Amino acid sequence: MAAAHAGQTTQATIGDSEFDRDTAVTPREPGVYEAELSGGWTIAGAVNGGYLLALLGRALADTLPHADPFTISAHYLTASRPGPALIRTETVRTGRTLSTGQASLLQYDDEGNEVERIRVLASYGDLDGLPDDVRTAAEPPRMPPVEQCFGADDAPKGASPMGGFPIADRLMVKLDPSTLGWALGQPSGKGEMRAWFGLADGRDADPFSLLLAVDALPPTAFDLGIKGWVPTVELTVHVRCRPAPGPLRVAISTRNLAGGFLEEDAEVWDSADRLVAQSRQLARARLG
Amino acid sequence: MAAAHAGQTTQATIGDSEFDRDTAVTPREPGVYEAELSGGWTIAGAVNGGYLLALLGRALADTLPHADPFTISAHYLTASRPGPALIRTETVRTGRTLSTGQASLLQYDDEGNEVERIRVLASYGDLDGLPDDVRTAAEPPRMPPVEQCFGADDAPKGASPMGGFPIADRLMVKLDPSTLGWALGQPSGKGEMRAWFGLADGRDADPFSLLLAVDALPPTAFDLGIKGWVPTVELTVHVRCRPAPGPLRVAISTRNLAGGFLEEDAEVWDSADRLVAQSRQLARARLG
Repeated sequence: MAAAHAGQTTQATIGDSEFDRDTAVTPREPGVYEAELSGGWTIAGAVNGGYLLALLGRALADTLPHADPFTISAHYLTASRPGPALIRTETVRTGRTLSTGQASLLQYDDEGNEVERIRVLASYGDLDGLPDDVRTAAEPPRMPPVEQCFGADDAPKGASPMGGFPIADRLMVKLDPSTLGWALGQPSGKGEMRAWFGLADGRDADPFSLLLAVDALPPTAFDLGIKGWVPTVELTVHVRCRPAPGPLRVAISTRNLAGGFLEEDAEVWDSADRLVAQSRQLARARLG
Repeated sequence: MAAAHAGQTTQATIGDSEFDRDTAVTPREPGVYEAELSGGWTIAGAVNGGYLLALLGRALADTLPHADPFTISAHYLTASRPGPALIRTETVRTGRTLSTGQASLLQYDDEGNEVERIRVLASYGDLDGLPDDVRTAAEPPRMPPVEQCFGADDAPKGASPMGGFPIADRLMVKLDPSTLGWALGQPSGKGEMRAWFGLADGRDADPFSLLLAVDALPPTAFDLGIKGWVPTVELTVHVRCRPAPGPLRVAISTRNLAGGFLEEDAEVWDSADRLVAQSRQLARARLG
């Protein structure tokens, strides 16, 4: 991969990487976990919603008898801040092939009161136990090779809306030039964004980093000519397959911007051309 | 509309229809509601998941300060049965424009123990308070007029997989013939289903009946050549606009059937050509 942490010489691995350390949760009592929201995954001061979902996803993997998120739905309540957090989980149902759990991410206000940031419902299973049958009509997005795509560090200094924020140093996001017109003041109006995606330290993807991948590209709203923040109301991710090693391709699209809200759909493809995750979020847009 | 209840002479209205009576919830104490799951919305003995979601949606509308579901995510835990049920709701957060709540649908086993059927997270708002701006790339599905589409009562007796079940009497579902090949043993393999949709008694659509509409067509799995039951694991619905009076068009599609699971996406269009709801569910499929 093109981007790597300055000075880093060996590729990070699943379980031993910055992403793993920053999404770690520490059991305090059964079902309750302490976490530290890292400032490294912020953009314009906001902690990335996909990073937070990965953190909640790991807490649920510890609580539930199944390890892999199959479908996880998050409702975002208040803006998270870097710093300490508490995750309370509940086992809703355990079954042979699927288990369902709930989790809340909490932080504290200045008076020390708990404030809920995100609430999640999720059903977990065992990805490795699924049959290999694939009957899909979906095809990977057509996009140029990564060498012909553009990342935050390819833009003139200060010119990239992704550059300069901590999260940009931790991600390898290389945008398909045909979805990059907005960065030059010429949004296509199609509501599409496509990119090669990975973690900058070379750690391969796993189901938890897929939860990050679906929410890590510039918003489709930029391609629709909207420049402001597009906060997520709700995000649901389906993890469909354990990703193969190597970079991912992420395609996001919006069909319907109306009444100040828009949906954003993501598809994530791995290096073996498998559709490994699908997501949809409802977000607010401020129409200019 | 073509189909009407036998002997019915006046069109049912929102608030005064079988759907309204069968989704009514009765407050028992603050946030707790009693309900009766009607046997009228079953297919092959299973209570329809969209009907159940509408019932939960109405309980949350009573609990929360906002009346309209904007995004509602349901995880289906165990199979519901016609009969008495209890709905426990929780207000998670109230805001100026959006409120978030949680709800559980419970029934009782033979020993009288509570068994949870469905758990829901939802964010509610005020559809009528949204601005009129629409910048959508989405177009209504192309399909023939309703007179050229086919419903359960158009099939030879006993030949329709939808016919003969109680829910078929309560719905007006007229399938686009180009998505009907599976009924003649010739599934297209595309994973698509399109239909005109309404309530058989002529009641117009509202946000709650949209929750039913997204889960009321034959499953796309039929069009993929799968004949068995396709139980929903999780269903998330975004209601984007209050529907105009008149019949709806519903288009559902599956891109990825893999590992024994498939996603099913629905779009619902109203008579004014507005995209009024979008949904996605993850369901299990038994590959034959």
